[in-house]
Amino acid sequence: MKNVFIIGVGLIGGSFALGIKKNYPSVIISGIDSNEAHLDEALKLGVIDVKETFEALKKADMVIIAIPVDATLEVLPNVLDKISDDTVVFDAGSTKEDICLRVKNHPKRRNYLAAHPIAGTEFSGPNAAIHNLYEHKTNIICEVEETAFKLQERALKLFSDLGMRIRYMNPKAHDKHIAYVSHLSHISAFMLGKTVIEKEKNERDIFDMAGSGFESTVRLAKSSPAMWTPIFKQNKTNVVETLEEYINNLKHFKDLIENEDFSAVYHEMESTNYIKHILKGIQ
Amino acid sequence: MKNVFIIGVGLIGGSFALGIKKNYPSVIISGIDSNEAHLDEALKLGVIDVKETFEALKKADMVIIAIPVDATLEVLPNVLDKISDDTVVFDAGSTKEDICLRVKNHPKRRNYLAAHPIAGTEFSGPNAAIHNLYEHKTNIICEVEETAFKLQERALKLFSDLGMRIRYMNPKAHDKHIAYVSHLSHISAFMLGKTVIEKEKNERDIFDMAGSGFESTVRLAKSSPAMWTPIFKQNKTNVVETLEEYINNLKHFKDLIENEDFSAVYHEMESTNYIKHILKGIQ
Repeated sequence: MKNVFIIGVGLIGGSFALGIKKNYPSVIISGIDSNEAHLDEALKLGVIDVKETFEALKKADMVIIAIPVDATLEVLPNVLDKISDDTVVFDAGSTKEDICLRVKNHPKRRNYLAAHPIAGTEFSGPNAAIHNLYEHKTNIICEVEETAFKLQERALKLFSDLGMRIRYMNPKAHDKHIAYVSHLSHISAFMLGKTVIEKEKNERDIFDMAGSGFESTVRLAKSSPAMWTPIFKQNKTNVVETLEEYINNLKHFKDLIENEDFSAVYHEMESTNYIKHILKGIQ
Repeated sequence: MKNVFIIGVGLIGGSFALGIKKNYPSVIISGIDSNEAHLDEALKLGVIDVKETFEALKKADMVIIAIPVDATLEVLPNVLDKISDDTVVFDAGSTKEDICLRVKNHPKRRNYLAAHPIAGTEFSGPNAAIHNLYEHKTNIICEVEETAFKLQERALKLFSDLGMRIRYMNPKAHDKHIAYVSHLSHISAFMLGKTVIEKEKNERDIFDMAGSGFESTVRLAKSSPAMWTPIFKQNKTNVVETLEEYINNLKHFKDLIENEDFSAVYHEMESTNYIKHILKGIQ
């Protein structure tokens, strides 16, 4: 592997670049980004080696697409049009069904691997790229059988070198499950932030009282709207379903408090404490 | 200060004990707890120096009550009955209105300082006690004018020695504001955990997909139901109000997604990103 192209040199793409530089020191990392300032910053930070354009993609051994999922719908077929037969392309988007559908009949479908590395922070841009972001993280691969075997192998070797574990799943199941463990958490945090900020408009001192618990719960509300809006758009049905269940659970809890059924309130929390055992399995 | 009594030798009381041992090496820490196993564990861990009973309280220079807020309503008047005129008593409860009301007319009201150190973790018990838990944390003091000056001074010196900053507030305002920045976060996390666990019953692999974002948002769902149930009970009106606002914000966000008004979805998240500036002020 000599030439890797990163399309989107932010947190996700930039962290791939840093991981590749460490594991494949002779590889040249080319960066493509619609944001020229980000591209310059990535070059200055040493995240990429050279700025490039789509026309140069034919020399790529690997192309990593790490841009908002709506942009991926446009960019991926365009990339597949331009690459050589021996290029592997993977994306890192948080939705998989629409993206797989978009290239289903593309003549270069077998050059594409649908991936979703479950990794990130609430920050964005090249400056947010970090070493070891992917270590011990899960990477969901969808429709693996649609990708040419030797190209799969090249991408999977990278994931293994970066310390990721792989899970195979179909795009529909991916989008449904990820709505619960990722998309809903983000909305929960955003709306918590909104509720408290609205209150704070009239109550200046409120944040003096916030501790690390609030900070942890609201952390994801720092996330990028440009990344998350198209995710909610593409995963609309699943996200709406999870939100309905979440809202119903909140309403039920509120009713229990209003009706002073505090043994049921206790029980609700006690049974949810089971999350301890689940979280032990994460990381 | 020679004798400090800690009633409730868990995370909060135990961490006070560790802080006092460090700053006042000659002080003897006596522990009282309705849970005999916790008391033995605290002694074994060196969190307390000796196990004691309520009858010994008359020799205390300081009494720290760190038990669930429903128990505090019973224990605090009892403690005030037993202490000497020169003992300062403070609690660490997450509600203040009911507690202040309970001892409003107690003959030893001036020996009591109503406090709420905004500090903690999702763990509990003596084993969860940590050094420096209170460093750089906020301590809310309510009705400070009701406490005898020289006794205030003794408690405030301890808070200062532990590195805390002090905010003064009336109990009603405390309970209202803390509902937003603490109690709501806990319910949000508990119900997020519940929603995902319910789904997981039929979808075994779902947690393989959970990343650090989910973990952060759901962290508080590990908290103790024995601590939190009485908090929601005592702060019922405020908690129900915050829950209504939170549920309405979630419903509105769901409606925007359902109606495909994604520019409004973007705007909701963008304006909530303001939380970044607020969180910078925390810690």
